[in-house]
Amino acid sequence: MSQAHQARLMDGTGLARRIVEEASRRAAEVTRRTGTAPCLATVLVGEDPASVTYVRMKRNRCRKAGIESRQVSLPATTTTAELVDTLTALSADPSVHGILLQHPVGPRIDERAAFEAIAPEKDVDGVTLSSYAAMSFGLPGFLSCTPGGIMRLLDEYDVDLAGRRAVVVGRSAILGKPVGMLLLGRDATVTYCHSRTKDLPSLLREADVVVAAVGRPELIRGEDIKPGAVVVDAGYNPGNVGDVHFDSAVTRAGLITPVPGGVGPMTIATLLEQTVTGAERQLGL
Amino acid sequence: MSQAHQARLMDGTGLARRIVEEASRRAAEVTRRTGTAPCLATVLVGEDPASVTYVRMKRNRCRKAGIESRQVSLPATTTTAELVDTLTALSADPSVHGILLQHPVGPRIDERAAFEAIAPEKDVDGVTLSSYAAMSFGLPGFLSCTPGGIMRLLDEYDVDLAGRRAVVVGRSAILGKPVGMLLLGRDATVTYCHSRTKDLPSLLREADVVVAAVGRPELIRGEDIKPGAVVVDAGYNPGNVGDVHFDSAVTRAGLITPVPGGVGPMTIATLLEQTVTGAERQLGL
Repeated sequence: MSQAHQARLMDGTGLARRIVEEASRRAAEVTRRTGTAPCLATVLVGEDPASVTYVRMKRNRCRKAGIESRQVSLPATTTTAELVDTLTALSADPSVHGILLQHPVGPRIDERAAFEAIAPEKDVDGVTLSSYAAMSFGLPGFLSCTPGGIMRLLDEYDVDLAGRRAVVVGRSAILGKPVGMLLLGRDATVTYCHSRTKDLPSLLREADVVVAAVGRPELIRGEDIKPGAVVVDAGYNPGNVGDVHFDSAVTRAGLITPVPGGVGPMTIATLLEQTVTGAERQLGL
Repeated sequence: MSQAHQARLMDGTGLARRIVEEASRRAAEVTRRTGTAPCLATVLVGEDPASVTYVRMKRNRCRKAGIESRQVSLPATTTTAELVDTLTALSADPSVHGILLQHPVGPRIDERAAFEAIAPEKDVDGVTLSSYAAMSFGLPGFLSCTPGGIMRLLDEYDVDLAGRRAVVVGRSAILGKPVGMLLLGRDATVTYCHSRTKDLPSLLREADVVVAAVGRPELIRGEDIKPGAVVVDAGYNPGNVGDVHFDSAVTRAGLITPVPGGVGPMTIATLLEQTVTGAERQLGL
């Protein structure tokens, strides 16, 4: 019996470490030259345990990278107007170089209105309409962190995108839509699939690159992966399970991201890197 | 010999006429109630004959609909900074309710910088990043006129989009990209194709809805159209030729736009309608 095919793993953890090391080096240089460390403001509304954990993790990573973070914790009763005021004040505060609004912010708040209160030059999480449009048109600006991390991972593994069929499963404002636009900007032929798509498997079977970004555990199975395809799993579901059924997909794909250790670390690395970039620009370096 | 199948034509001319009649009625109401007619500023750089013709046509249509137009003609030597200043001034001028920058503006000018000088609330041609992002996320805002006109035409003919395969050929900032986002917002499964796409015919043959928006005369031929598909030809090439080879496509499609008389009139109708909407909002009606 021959050994079953196994895709090469895309090591997000290792690449993210190198990106963070470089961001850390640049952060130290910012601090040395200006006397001011890059500073990320993290804004958390309420006490959702997952959100609390995410923010804590991001702040820990900042600290290790020589990036200050300023935590702003607001009660669950915060109104949209109050949150907008907070974000507007942080946007105007010269000691803050990047702003992260941990989301989802809950049903009581108009999330879009909150995002739009973040100044584009501090939108290091890439959530504003302005950042999205810039990603769509290849203009300068901060990338949404997960899409940005995915593109970096594809580049690290020399994935050729021009003329290739890419299928993006999911169409959220900060993941599916922007990653599709970034792939289109690299000349892929991009198909957006979603909950209303009929016969997803037949679309997947034609895809050279699959980006799963829908938040449905193990929705995508190996038998639907074109042999040799590149599979990027941006899903993160309870139990460390992605949107791709890894064990079956790994026997068909050419390259695949593990969960965890694939896209996840790239998201945070992109956030830290963009925070340092924001600081460099705002401090005139 | 049986009669060859002939697709039903999507009559853009007739629908546009009805839209303009309604816009005209609303424009008269604006004028009656406020003493001020809706006003579209048309900005033309240089004397490109096609652009001169387009602007003249748009102004004529405005006049017939009871919409004032203010022509701003700038020399071909205009710089980006000068054009931005002009557009900024028009954005601040309360007697102007909509702004149309005729494009392309030529290689000497940063077109994106110029578009961004248009205030979103006067962007009745739907060219700003803000308008694009709003279209992408289903937020309120003005639509790019051709994509907006296409969606209106699809609705007029009761084209079911949810779960259908839509192929958009072309990825320009004001046509391909936004029309794809509008189709996605209506739950179509959307594929963006372009010059680097391999095997366009096989993608077209799976499409329930084809939007051709690439500016390559008769690129798409009948044999590549799925029988019964909806074919929208937004191409407009010299000699009144679209991006679709009409004579062959009409024998396969279920619905098809003629060129001329399909998408073209819808674009202008959308511009007029959005100008009146802009005036109503700015005048507090």
